[in-house]
Amino acid sequence: MTIAPLCPSPIMQHETVQMAHGAGGRLSQALMQRVFMPHLHNPFLDLLDDQAKLDLPPGRVAFTTDSYVVSPVFFPGGSIGELSVNGTVNDLAVGGARPLYLSAGFVLEEGFLLVELETIVQSMAEAARKAGVVIVTGDTKVVGKGQCDKLFINTSGIGVIREGANLSCRNLQQGTSLILSGTVGDHGMAIMTSREGLSFQSRITSDCAALNGMIAAMLDAVPAIQAMRDPTRGGVAATLNELAVSSGVGIEINETTIPVKAEVRGACELLGIDPLHVANEGKLVVAVAAADAAQVLEVMHSFEEGRDAVIIGSVTNEHPGMVVMRTAFGSRRIIDLPLGEQLPRIC
Amino acid sequence: MTIAPLCPSPIMQHETVQMAHGAGGRLSQALMQRVFMPHLHNPFLDLLDDQAKLDLPPGRVAFTTDSYVVSPVFFPGGSIGELSVNGTVNDLAVGGARPLYLSAGFVLEEGFLLVELETIVQSMAEAARKAGVVIVTGDTKVVGKGQCDKLFINTSGIGVIREGANLSCRNLQQGTSLILSGTVGDHGMAIMTSREGLSFQSRITSDCAALNGMIAAMLDAVPAIQAMRDPTRGGVAATLNELAVSSGVGIEINETTIPVKAEVRGACELLGIDPLHVANEGKLVVAVAAADAAQVLEVMHSFEEGRDAVIIGSVTNEHPGMVVMRTAFGSRRIIDLPLGEQLPRIC
Repeated sequence: MTIAPLCPSPIMQHETVQMAHGAGGRLSQALMQRVFMPHLHNPFLDLLDDQAKLDLPPGRVAFTTDSYVVSPVFFPGGSIGELSVNGTVNDLAVGGARPLYLSAGFVLEEGFLLVELETIVQSMAEAARKAGVVIVTGDTKVVGKGQCDKLFINTSGIGVIREGANLSCRNLQQGTSLILSGTVGDHGMAIMTSREGLSFQSRITSDCAALNGMIAAMLDAVPAIQAMRDPTRGGVAATLNELAVSSGVGIEINETTIPVKAEVRGACELLGIDPLHVANEGKLVVAVAAADAAQVLEVMHSFEEGRDAVIIGSVTNEHPGMVVMRTAFGSRRIIDLPLGEQLPRIC
Repeated sequence: MTIAPLCPSPIMQHETVQMAHGAGGRLSQALMQRVFMPHLHNPFLDLLDDQAKLDLPPGRVAFTTDSYVVSPVFFPGGSIGELSVNGTVNDLAVGGARPLYLSAGFVLEEGFLLVELETIVQSMAEAARKAGVVIVTGDTKVVGKGQCDKLFINTSGIGVIREGANLSCRNLQQGTSLILSGTVGDHGMAIMTSREGLSFQSRITSDCAALNGMIAAMLDAVPAIQAMRDPTRGGVAATLNELAVSSGVGIEINETTIPVKAEVRGACELLGIDPLHVANEGKLVVAVAAADAAQVLEVMHSFEEGRDAVIIGSVTNEHPGMVVMRTAFGSRRIIDLPLGEQLPRIC
């Protein structure tokens, strides 16, 4: 005999996010119990306290935050869910930290489909499991229809910095080699082409991935890696400029060495965008002493995320603070920061 | 002689937030240097790394997050700026932690006035200084006009839990006294009345305040405090219900003891809202053994934030999981969770 529930959960009456889901009352609880907890539950989150209480291993603590506002929220190769986990995991890992714990803050638009929200939460849970991190605390707000675009997610992260790691974008010096972990522009062009509805969209997929596993192996092999950055907003161009300015050195790269997928290059040409300015979400720029570069490359090649890793250039004492590229035609041009208007809401 | 700058900062050309301010290029840098860093700069943030590296004192670490979407962003008694700092500071402090470090993640709407953004950032800096916390890492995204409402701020926070503190909403037992630190409903009704344009709006101001100083003194005096909560969304009613359910006990409160300002009570009556359901941003509900209550009250009374602190009720083994109020007329009524739709975007 099946007994009908006396009091069906109020959330069962709704297929979309309601203002009341964010007001701290019964429907807030229902949203938590129906949509978030089935996927994210763990001993920290289950307590439903205002704060998680954590026992961290010894070491300096790395702390980072990122808000994710990507549009569309589902894109070829991923969604805002795994993006919000992988991006923050990577921001910890490039500092030499082992990512451990994440927070998740949601801003939801009234009317957003609960089934889509659940899909996104599920993809966050899967990404966290893959990356070996735990989402330990969270918050949900709801704003009226037209007051945000579907949903925004903030994740902040805590990690513990590896003993002996001393990564800083101020460490580069003459002779430092620069390694790029793979093809550039995949994430940004996956977003752009899906948004613009271009015909080749189906072939470009985001590179969204957590890099902490590969980075840990790289630091195991070569603890003296000088700097790492994930070239997200502003692309490889912005990352190289930051490194050059922070270390007060010049950087020279070779265009012919930079891997760009044919379909990404085609889309960039069509839209008039430099692939070096396009955001990546699963790539790494590494600065390492020339003598150590081969060993780092060998480790990277053993990971799916670093299979196409290649040396793209080196550091010089000439033109400090500037990035210069030797083009495929043998000429040289300055790789500047983008002014910024090309690729909004890519991450 | 005054030398004119050769190259004026590109941000000088704009009075409002541009899409390019969020794209990771030159204008992102300009926004950082012109609007954020003058107010927030400190040795951590000055490094402009993807993550802050922190040396924490020994102890368990508390970690919390909150997104702030209050509308309007400036309200009587404060702004989204200090709200976003104080709210997260309080979420750490009520767990028995000394708040130390915050992150700040901004989502800005294209077209938002830079001068208003700067005022908000300045109020965050002042609130952080008052509360003794440092904003060590941040992120800024820009979304198109109409894709968010002016700005949303996420702050996450890290603190270290005091030796000996064991605060949990599962600690309440028969005889536990419940203390409320002051008048209820000030924040929520300040927002509501300023939004509705009611005539008495000028007299109601938000109670937005950091409570970590008072809480530290309370725990110095009585380390055995059982639980603390700041009654924000859902108000005192939601907080008491959470405590009752988590501890599996009943709670009885007396209506006549609950302090409500006359103008807040008037506005609540006019709008048909129960003051116990209205959000507070500088108030505290404290659960403590009856024998310790007088000592805790004495400490609270010595702080501006706890001047009106009062015992509002106690814990009983009857009606577990339920909150019952003895009304001013001598009758008893159940204080339930709000369903949730009354007060959106209050915090």
